[in-house]
Amino acid sequence: MKPRGQFITFEGTEGVGKSTQLGQAASLLRDLGVEVVVTREPGGTPMAEAIRDLLLAPRDEPVNDLTELLLMFAARAQHLHTRILPELEAGKWVLCDRFTDATFAYQGGGRGVPADAIATLETLVQGSVRPDHIVLLDAPVETGMARARHRGELDRFEQEAVAFFERIRRTYLDRAAAAPERYHIVNAARPLEQVSEDVSHLFKSFVLR
Amino acid sequence: MKPRGQFITFEGTEGVGKSTQLGQAASLLRDLGVEVVVTREPGGTPMAEAIRDLLLAPRDEPVNDLTELLLMFAARAQHLHTRILPELEAGKWVLCDRFTDATFAYQGGGRGVPADAIATLETLVQGSVRPDHIVLLDAPVETGMARARHRGELDRFEQEAVAFFERIRRTYLDRAAAAPERYHIVNAARPLEQVSEDVSHLFKSFVLR
Ligand SMILES: Nc1ncnc2c1ncn2[C@@H]1O[C@H](COP(=O)(O)OP(=O)(O)OP(=O)(O)O)[C@@H](O)[C@H]1O
Ligand SMILES: Nc1ncnc2c1ncn2[C@@H]1O[C@H](COP(=O)(O)OP(=O)(O)OP(=O)(O)O)[C@@H](O)[C@H]1O
Ligand SMILES: [Mg+2]
Ligand SMILES: [Mg+2]
Repeated sequence: MKPRGQFITFEGTEGVGKSTQLGQAASLLRDLGVEVVVTREPGGTPMAEAIRDLLLAPRDEPVNDLTELLLMFAARAQHLHTRILPELEAGKWVLCDRFTDATFAYQGGGRGVPADAIATLETLVQGSVRPDHIVLLDAPVETGMARARHRGELDRFEQEAVAFFERIRRTYLDRAAAAPERYHIVNAARPLEQVSEDVSHLFKSFVLR
Repeated sequence: MKPRGQFITFEGTEGVGKSTQLGQAASLLRDLGVEVVVTREPGGTPMAEAIRDLLLAPRDEPVNDLTELLLMFAARAQHLHTRILPELEAGKWVLCDRFTDATFAYQGGGRGVPADAIATLETLVQGSVRPDHIVLLDAPVETGMARARHRGELDRFEQEAVAFFERIRRTYLDRAAAAPERYHIVNAARPLEQVSEDVSHLFKSFVLR
């Protein structure tokens, strides 16, 4: 029987390069003979993607902060229990574009939902499951926003002001500082090749552990 | 300033007569000069109704129990904070077709989610808000099902087996027994006129309090 796969998430504010780096890391792992599943949150199953659509669509009705928080965890419960955990148990590595750190950062730091409410839901939905590694791509908010800008219509989150994303960046960095063995902060303000080199270095170390 | 309105919910298994009795009670209250808002769960705002659609649609993907539970409370947070509470504070009475008792009954008794997980979410979303009165229409499961049967395609809940609804009925009755001052059990197995008479009697007493 194969050993359990590793669960690795990519985090960071808008446009820092999460999807780009995740794609490159998946290729690298496959080259090294690792079976990889690539997925994202909110989403990752048809039902969870339907919840994602509800969350991201701009709408006239103001969305209550708790509604947003509970929808995030509803999508996560579906994704984690019906897809991520079975893949990990089958020995595959799962690379996920955002996970619960994004909830602490966006709904917590960004919206102001108390962290203990988020932690309660984290335990309800995940039990003791946490990512093995979290790759935090860190760059000034404006840097990522400038990269992401040419992407057409803005979703409900992208419509927020810069201060919202500053609070999110701060929350990510605080969480990383509090658990440095699990978080890997990569300076994503540099040219793509340099960021990719650091990430590839990291993933080689994950394979060797 | 008008005093806060009363918040009254209608509960019971499929087809017992909740919507019928709620409509009649609303007419009675209006005749007595009470301003009434009629609503339902899951739903009650455009966003919450979109969550309802996600919850009720039959789908190939098995829905995780926690996903279902969190979607119920996501819809409830939206409904309660953006609609029910403002209406109550404006002095209107709110009559709601199902509320949190249905979550304890369906997701708890029906699906087997532990009641303490539901209670945690209840407090997170509602704080100390609870219905002033809960009208529990009680009838044998088969009685309600026979009444509801001619309604076309079954939703994801209606497709469950009788045993599922027996557990739901039991949970409702147990909750009512534990807090008799708040729950009003009406024998809904009788002819419509008799049920309506009891409900109308109840609502007159609510107005006089
Ligand atoms: N280090 C970099 N320097 C310059 N451009 C970059 C760098 N990393 C990624 N990009 C480019 O920036 C844009 C955004 O990258 P990407 O989509 O990977 O970010 P993201 O973090 O996934 O964004 P989102 O938060 O919107 O999902 C892309 O066009 C990508 O090619
Ligand atoms: N006491 C009664 N005797 C016979 N028929 C009844 C009685 N009460 C309601 N009905 C009829 O039973 C059907 C179901 O009633 P209703 O829609 O009010 O139930 P419900 O509890 O709201 O159902 P659902 O759980 O599906 O929303 C309707 O056709 C209604 O006219
Ligand atoms: Mg991306
Ligand atoms: Mg009804």
